Amino acid sequence: MDVFGSLNLNELALGLSNLSMFPCFDTAHYIISVMSLREQPGALEVSQRSPFACWFSSMLYCFGGAVLSALMMADAPVAPLSNTTNLLLASLMWYLVFYCPLDAVYSLASVLPVRLVLTAMKEVTRTWKVLGGVTQAGRKYKDGLFVMIAVGWAKGAGGGLLSNFEQLVRGVWKPETNELLKMSYPTKVTLLGSVVFSLHQCRFLPIHTHQLIFIYTLFIVTNKVCGNHSRFNPQSVRVNVLLSKNYLHSDLDIQRHNNTCFLLFHGFYPVSFHLLPVFFCHHYARAAASDVTVTSTPNWSIYTIKKTLIIHEYPKLHLAN
Amino acid sequence: MDVFGSLNLNELALGLSNLSMFPCFDTAHYIISVMSLREQPGALEVSQRSPFACWFSSMLYCFGGAVLSALMMADAPVAPLSNTTNLLLASLMWYLVFYCPLDAVYSLASVLPVRLVLTAMKEVTRTWKVLGGVTQAGRKYKDGLFVMIAVGWAKGAGGGLLSNFEQLVRGVWKPETNELLKMSYPTKVTLLGSVVFSLHQCRFLPIHTHQLIFIYTLFIVTNKVCGNHSRFNPQSVRVNVLLSKNYLHSDLDIQRHNNTCFLLFHGFYPVSFHLLPVFFCHHYARAAASDVTVTSTPNWSIYTIKKTLIIHEYPKLHLAN
Amino acid sequence: MDVFGSLNLNELALGLSNLSMFPCFDTAHYIISVMSLREQPGALEVSQRSPFACWFSSMLYCFGGAVLSALMMADAPVAPLSNTTNLLLASLMWYLVFYCPLDAVYSLASVLPVRLVLTAMKEVTRTWKVLGGVTQAGRKYKDGLFVMIAVGWAKGAGGGLLSNFEQLVRGVWKPETNELLKMSYPTKVTLLGSVVFSLHQCRFLPIHTHQLIFIYTLFIVTNKVCGNHSRFNPQSVRVNVLLSKNYLHSDLDIQRHNNTCFLLFHGFYPVSFHLLPVFFCHHYARAAASDVTVTSTPNWSIYTIKKTLIIHEYPKLHLAN
Repeated sequence: MDVFGSLNLNELALGLSNLSMFPCFDTAHYIISVMSLREQPGALEVSQRSPFACWFSSMLYCFGGAVLSALMMADAPVAPLSNTTNLLLASLMWYLVFYCPLDAVYSLASVLPVRLVLTAMKEVTRTWKVLGGVTQAGRKYKDGLFVMIAVGWAKGAGGGLLSNFEQLVRGVWKPETNELLKMSYPTKVTLLGSVVFSLHQCRFLPIHTHQLIFIYTLFIVTNKVCGNHSRFNPQSVRVNVLLSKNYLHSDLDIQRHNNTCFLLFHGFYPVSFHLLPVFFCHHYARAAASDVTVTSTPNWSIYTIKKTLIIHEYPKLHLAN
Repeated sequence: MDVFGSLNLNELALGLSNLSMFPCFDTAHYIISVMSLREQPGALEVSQRSPFACWFSSMLYCFGGAVLSALMMADAPVAPLSNTTNLLLASLMWYLVFYCPLDAVYSLASVLPVRLVLTAMKEVTRTWKVLGGVTQAGRKYKDGLFVMIAVGWAKGAGGGLLSNFEQLVRGVWKPETNELLKMSYPTKVTLLGSVVFSLHQCRFLPIHTHQLIFIYTLFIVTNKVCGNHSRFNPQSVRVNVLLSKNYLHSDLDIQRHNNTCFLLFHGFYPVSFHLLPVFFCHHYARAAASDVTVTSTPNWSIYTIKKTLIIHEYPKLHLAN
Repeated sequence: MDVFGSLNLNELALGLSNLSMFPCFDTAHYIISVMSLREQPGALEVSQRSPFACWFSSMLYCFGGAVLSALMMADAPVAPLSNTTNLLLASLMWYLVFYCPLDAVYSLASVLPVRLVLTAMKEVTRTWKVLGGVTQAGRKYKDGLFVMIAVGWAKGAGGGLLSNFEQLVRGVWKPETNELLKMSYPTKVTLLGSVVFSLHQCRFLPIHTHQLIFIYTLFIVTNKVCGNHSRFNPQSVRVNVLLSKNYLHSDLDIQRHNNTCFLLFHGFYPVSFHLLPVFFCHHYARAAASDVTVTSTPNWSIYTIKKTLIIHEYPKLHLAN
């Protein structure tokens, strides 16, 4: 592609395609994966009640893609366990995110700039995983376009596709929803990547591999980091349960509520202060049919209201005013 | 067997055993499979809400046997995806059955004679699948009679055996029932075929392969087409939800109800008119514990009351008078 | 180890390690496995309603470890079916335990001394299964310590780890609990054994294989038989549903209740009479949130109150006074 030549991006793309995922990018992937597990409703309780189930769930978040693609290709699904270094690294991250004294690691990783960087790095590993799955399938099934797409997708978005069974490990069962019925943003974007890389593997795309890696990585990283994925899938804004010890009581009026939030945000996370109006104007909160109260946020700004507010009654909630 | 010689059936049996399943018989199998998915409660709604989950469910109906037997034999369960032609054919049938303008394909295939022919052709593919599974298992496990039975059964009735997980894809979860607890007619007859072909593979039956194929195919086709399977399993009469736009109101009395039915049937499907007394005398309707009302019909006559009536209150229902 | 030499245990350990599991120990494993299935709530009803599902469940209890470890190592999970002799033996035990006239086999195997011996023999097979799994994994993944642990564990405690799916076969679905969330005693002790054998396989333990087999077998057998596992896991005392035709009415006062129990025990099972004080002092009864009434007992003394009492109201229950 001439664009690459004219913009002198070829060297950058080649450098990116030679990047080693271990240890930095893998670590970021493990941290973000375990954090997204921790932000699931009930996960913290499971981590106290049954550390083993929690560890197993974390490993499914971290290695779910490898397990699922191995199952699909009739390889041994325990193979990820044979990579002792990565397994220990993921287990260490699991331990630090869930049980670190003072909750230091989770708090630190939740700070917006840190989380943004980690999320970006995690997205980079997605490219490698999709490409790995497509190549692995292409070796066994030459010209098997659909097999390549399926395996690449499974490897890149395995944790999400396995989510029903991952939840089952934690004693949660939600049969009415799954990633096939209602795809989340990462699942969708991985499917897109898998299709593109599979077409490339079958020589339908006149572009070099390193260029494609560069374009796809750039696409998913910017999409994720800029939070633009809500444009891609408006419904992907997830409902996250915010568990907190010092929540506000429901008899506070919303104004005071907001003030407190602003004050707390201001005190704790000055960097995110300018983001708040965006957040409160563009998103709305919903209460789930449970006793814990939930509020929906874009992925990257979960941290902004964590530890600061839990809104207890939905009818009183008019954050978007 | 002398019977074959004396009846000059040997040539016919040999011809049948050399029949190619692709494309006609496979197409019939895909159409009937996707139609039986469409007739599941809630499937139409899923097809509107989430076409991908619907497509995936359809593929499990079409290729469930191949996937399950591959899992059991430690072959790659994505292998059916590598047969691009068959996958595209099945996908096309899925599209036509669910989304064809004017619902033309489904309406056409629902007409009794067409459906009977398609069902007969689908049953023929069952023989080939069972035989394929038994042979595949016999190649790996010589004299492993039970392995052959299991794999042949899985390959022939895979969609049914996987039904719990197929339903999960559509967000439906019915743990209280499965094909092992309460076998449906196709599952039973496939098990029978698998036993017979496995015994033959182990040389316990003094009969040629093409003769066995002929006898078994004749048996399942006539059983299915004549609807005699209710003799084989009186409980196999399934509860099918009939979704319709122009249903009759529950305050109609049954007499008027029946009259309307007859009129509607008469108008739409003259060919089936003579079947109605049989249908209304021999079968009864049951209401499920849900807000949709259901009525039980033998498999081959679903179409007869489709689009014509939904009976809304069970106590008022005395069809068998 | 010098201890083995000084105690002249080497010969015994070598003899144990050369012991053949077939047929005696395997038979004991099948009987105890099928009995523990029979003691599950609702299993008896399933055995009447759907013998095939019951048989399939029994096979999962008997061969669950082999199936799960095969799935994990990408071997064919139908392989256990290829061992025709063992399959027929297990099926025979299933038939005898569930359908024997006069319930003779179950009643006999439930007598304390018989059950103790069978349980001890079953525990011996556990050692062999764990060792088999570890060796099998070690052959494929040299130095893959975690793979060995996982496969050994799966092979030794497969039935338990698969319990959610085994229950699904019987139409029971309990997503809120599984063996990872809350490990039972056998699962825990199998994990311990798997870790020890895997460390030995990786040459971290300076001990001969036959010595390790001897120590581990001795440990699990004594633990299980002496009922000391409650020390290892106080919560592992299971809630067992006691189904009986001649239960006592809830309006009996507890004193008379106890007297009756003692009398019944005395009459039926003299050998267990001296165990009763231990039983009634150390264990307590709990009522489950269902209409059937349950009482908790240590595994080996289930039989003591089977057929004698069902306590219908929890508040009246003060057995431990």
